[in-house]
Amino acid sequence: MDVLISEVGPRDGLQMLGFALPLQVKEDWIAAEAAAGVREIEVGSFVDYRALPQMADTAALVAHGRTIPGLTVAVLVPNLRGARAALEAGAHKLSIPLSVSEVHSKRNVNRDHAQMLSEIKAIRAAVDAVPEADRPHFEVGLSTAFGCSIAGPVAERDVVRLAVAALEAGAAEVGLSDTTGMGDPATVRSRIRAVRAEVGDRLTGVHLHNTRGLGLANAFSALEEGIATLDASLGGLGGCPAAPGASGNIVTEDLAFMLEAMGHRTGVDLDRLMAVRDVIRPALGDEPLHGFTPDAGLPQRRVPAA
Amino acid sequence: MDVLISEVGPRDGLQMLGFALPLQVKEDWIAAEAAAGVREIEVGSFVDYRALPQMADTAALVAHGRTIPGLTVAVLVPNLRGARAALEAGAHKLSIPLSVSEVHSKRNVNRDHAQMLSEIKAIRAAVDAVPEADRPHFEVGLSTAFGCSIAGPVAERDVVRLAVAALEAGAAEVGLSDTTGMGDPATVRSRIRAVRAEVGDRLTGVHLHNTRGLGLANAFSALEEGIATLDASLGGLGGCPAAPGASGNIVTEDLAFMLEAMGHRTGVDLDRLMAVRDVIRPALGDEPLHGFTPDAGLPQRRVPAA
Repeated sequence: MDVLISEVGPRDGLQMLGFALPLQVKEDWIAAEAAAGVREIEVGSFVDYRALPQMADTAALVAHGRTIPGLTVAVLVPNLRGARAALEAGAHKLSIPLSVSEVHSKRNVNRDHAQMLSEIKAIRAAVDAVPEADRPHFEVGLSTAFGCSIAGPVAERDVVRLAVAALEAGAAEVGLSDTTGMGDPATVRSRIRAVRAEVGDRLTGVHLHNTRGLGLANAFSALEEGIATLDASLGGLGGCPAAPGASGNIVTEDLAFMLEAMGHRTGVDLDRLMAVRDVIRPALGDEPLHGFTPDAGLPQRRVPAA
Repeated sequence: MDVLISEVGPRDGLQMLGFALPLQVKEDWIAAEAAAGVREIEVGSFVDYRALPQMADTAALVAHGRTIPGLTVAVLVPNLRGARAALEAGAHKLSIPLSVSEVHSKRNVNRDHAQMLSEIKAIRAAVDAVPEADRPHFEVGLSTAFGCSIAGPVAERDVVRLAVAALEAGAAEVGLSDTTGMGDPATVRSRIRAVRAEVGDRLTGVHLHNTRGLGLANAFSALEEGIATLDASLGGLGGCPAAPGASGNIVTEDLAFMLEAMGHRTGVDLDRLMAVRDVIRPALGDEPLHGFTPDAGLPQRRVPAA
């Protein structure tokens, strides 16, 4: 099937870095990855730049991304204020995190569920005020949908309940996020089915972390359920500083290799995707780029001549 | 379902090391991992110890393993001579690699397909000469079943053909090995189905590498097809020296976590399994132990008290 790889590295990856990448490096990264065939890139988030200086140039990145033909320029917004900035910048897609774990929601965006649902309603109104031709897509990502490292296990019924509530409040679609890397293939399948039973095809994507190495197994499970949008991060950037080697996000390069090997269509040129690493590596200092396929190399795809 | 994790680290892992672990360390490893609930361990291979000095103490390890109640002591044998040594030592299970790629077979064990099938017949006869109460299990592992790094792609029909031939020659069961880490979840499913269509439940296990990070996704695919025996290596030992970070085998710790999280029964105590790493780490020198779950830690399994 056609699968959309949504690159979240410039947002989810870089927000974990202890330093900010120069705007030019980010622009080169986004341009190179789009040229490799990645059709959607989350270029940053409209958060308070005093809290996350790595994201201070998000408006400039949206402007740059909009110049790349065929690229969907996505951004994360934590609240209405961020959404307004995203609309002003001209992002094609806005995502807001609604954490199923309420304690995580308070810690992450300083709002409980009721406050977040109000915020989603207000963002919907702001989005609808944009003329239809320029109106961006608006989705809600259900964070901690497979467990919370603060509150512990997260109940499936709460995931379903908040998916329904987010759509009622005005999201066009919802995604499930394994923020803490606590998901497994059976739970991924079960929760996708449970949410789909209530909201159908308005559940479109998953955002999986690789904290315990299960990221691609979980991705395969989601694909088997017909999920066709998968977030990933180049080099697995976004790793948890507390867990060496435990890259946060699934690695775009490994995911793209898996999808292509399975016969799915991603539009990505694997060799060009591998080369994108060279664009950002010089600017990363000691921050490692993860990924197995880039180290091992792509396997031979043809029988060699005798 | 009940899933058997077959630990291959003392064989597949250590044969890749540039040095030999002391016998005592190997014995402690095997004892600790058995005590953690792992029920089958491949303790070594009966190869020419001049070529692989790391495996010189395999007979002693078989003797030691036999003293551990409930443990299936498995060994790899490359040929009839190795099988005779395994029978003399008293191994519970013998595996011989039959590489689907004939060029790989010649390079690995210096025999073509016809010669290997003769060897399998001769081993069957030697095994059958053992009194029934002590007769070990004899299986054939179909190496390069998902591709060969020398010959390139491997055809599914050749995998099926050699599975049938190996059983006709006297193997009790066959397994599929992704020796080169070229498998993907769709191909794993397809080849398991194709082999099962011809030999049914006599295909029992898979041996998956993690060269391109797809090991657990492939394991999940095999589980979905009802495969209930999965090889793995503690700390992913067996990594390819040419591919930094690309651990060769799937990591026992990550696999056990995935299986338990999915609700499968492995008999393994995850905390005790993680602690086995401490048994071997001091003897490994600079050789890293891989694995995401050990770094990240096990997730909370209960809601914490308020």
